[in-house]
Amino acid sequence: MKKLINKPEDVVREELEGIALAHPDLVKVSYDPYYIVRADAPVKGKVGLVSGGGSGHEPLHGGYVGMGMLDAACPGEVFTSPTPDQMLEATKAVNGGAGVLHIVKNYTGDVMNFEMAAEMAQMEGIEVTSVVTNDDVAVQDSLYTAGRRGVGITVFVEKIAGAAAEEGRSLAEVTAVAKKVNDWGRSMGMALTSCVVPQAGKPTFDLGEDEMEIGIGIHGEPGRKRMKIAPADEIVEMLAEPIIHDLPYKEGDQVIAMVNGMGGTPLIELYIAYRKLHHILAGHGITVVRNLVGNYITSLEMAGMSITLMKADDELIKLWDAPVKTAALRWGV
Amino acid sequence: MKKLINKPEDVVREELEGIALAHPDLVKVSYDPYYIVRADAPVKGKVGLVSGGGSGHEPLHGGYVGMGMLDAACPGEVFTSPTPDQMLEATKAVNGGAGVLHIVKNYTGDVMNFEMAAEMAQMEGIEVTSVVTNDDVAVQDSLYTAGRRGVGITVFVEKIAGAAAEEGRSLAEVTAVAKKVNDWGRSMGMALTSCVVPQAGKPTFDLGEDEMEIGIGIHGEPGRKRMKIAPADEIVEMLAEPIIHDLPYKEGDQVIAMVNGMGGTPLIELYIAYRKLHHILAGHGITVVRNLVGNYITSLEMAGMSITLMKADDELIKLWDAPVKTAALRWGV
Repeated sequence: MKKLINKPEDVVREELEGIALAHPDLVKVSYDPYYIVRADAPVKGKVGLVSGGGSGHEPLHGGYVGMGMLDAACPGEVFTSPTPDQMLEATKAVNGGAGVLHIVKNYTGDVMNFEMAAEMAQMEGIEVTSVVTNDDVAVQDSLYTAGRRGVGITVFVEKIAGAAAEEGRSLAEVTAVAKKVNDWGRSMGMALTSCVVPQAGKPTFDLGEDEMEIGIGIHGEPGRKRMKIAPADEIVEMLAEPIIHDLPYKEGDQVIAMVNGMGGTPLIELYIAYRKLHHILAGHGITVVRNLVGNYITSLEMAGMSITLMKADDELIKLWDAPVKTAALRWGV
Repeated sequence: MKKLINKPEDVVREELEGIALAHPDLVKVSYDPYYIVRADAPVKGKVGLVSGGGSGHEPLHGGYVGMGMLDAACPGEVFTSPTPDQMLEATKAVNGGAGVLHIVKNYTGDVMNFEMAAEMAQMEGIEVTSVVTNDDVAVQDSLYTAGRRGVGITVFVEKIAGAAAEEGRSLAEVTAVAKKVNDWGRSMGMALTSCVVPQAGKPTFDLGEDEMEIGIGIHGEPGRKRMKIAPADEIVEMLAEPIIHDLPYKEGDQVIAMVNGMGGTPLIELYIAYRKLHHILAGHGITVVRNLVGNYITSLEMAGMSITLMKADDELIKLWDAPVKTAALRWGV
């Protein structure tokens, strides 16, 4: 195992220390229990947004804490759900009196623990709603999931619901727009290589020297099929077509598109993929109005990519364009 | 070789197509010869900034074209110098009448070709100055370099000189501040793994399963020493101490610090490294006033990192903070 770490059991704590030292203008870090919170939390009168999940998907979620996006993120150990205790404390820390939205990727542990945290917070008088993201079209159920997995659309939910909260919308309104983003979003990913969880010390799965896995999950969960590696253009087709036909996205649609690297993929390759995605969408009469190309929801050092599309109307584009100031996503300020 | 590419010989062209499709608001792309230029170039009355070099270091340089940073970038084939023709055409395309600065990483081919392009541009009546970056303290001469290699400080030169040009400073003034940034900057890198150049199809160098290379170049050039892999904190010390003692940075200094991933390094590891760098600098009485943690100058999918420090005074901090709007670096707008 080749990693820039000290002891495997210290990875998450030391990462949090690094984030706290690098971004004191944006965030504060709690170490007991672990969570990352906006430097100015709680923002009085604003709906608070809390997300979280296993570590190893950086910059998700901690990199998205700040003005116009998340109020707090709860990191679990690598690929391990955070605890209800973390989520409860984060919820209390961001409660500005207007209620708190939990943004939860659909994995059994995350969903269960966020439900428990929401109940506890409500017992303490904080109004909590939840949106569970489930945008991965690759498989119906998965290794850690009943129903579809929550992946790339989570970044979009955090950005767009974050902008809605910043505008002063109510908890019901922010929750509704978060649900709309998830409903209008679809994703699929693939891997060229596995990743290595520090505490495990060996690859999560094995892929032959000339193989790839289509429909992989962000923890290395099995996908749709394992096959010989193909040219990038064919791979993009294998991801894009199922996504397009699932919603379905249709002629005349506008979309916000993300070509996301899994952590070990050079940016040069992601632009090659974006080029093909753009052409495929144009062939379907679909226009990309905004895009992200880079590492936004990763799987440690996995080589591979995922594609996320979200149908966009004027409301969602306006919220997308609203100012955001976080470690990993920043514009307009 | 596992890569998200089509034909190796099409990698750079297809990347450029992807960049053009993803960022039409920021850049235009010329395909004959290859260069990426600000969408609004030439900016009348502004000093133009041109950089370039082999591809494979993305987001350098194309990701830094836009308001407040580069006016144009000339990509060569992967790890191969661009031609004087590319540089000449880019220089002409960004000439707004106030002269053009060439920002050149110190590699023999880049330096030679930029010199030739500058002469040709001057024959066509364009005033051209050059700054050659040479911040890598690892080795004196290297595989493709006489003198020190130019690495991470190039990002800082592009940002800070770009801000100075945007302010309307003269060619002499912009050139002077670019030189100051390079003079005040030092870097060193290391690798856990090699990278694979698409046209070569095999690793550039071999590293044992338990080995790392300290002082590596961004094309995989040999460094200071090959040794058994060590904990992250020791690795950061091996990079930071030679950098600190080289300028030397000293007690009371303020610095802008970059912890840069080589392309295949998870962000979680870069934050662990930043944490240790911060503590080492604090131990020397040096304060980090701004920082970058992420992939800014890469070597394809190489796993590893580099550290860059730049001594910062009020002028440089002000220029650093000035608005920038590029694909890879954006704030204030």
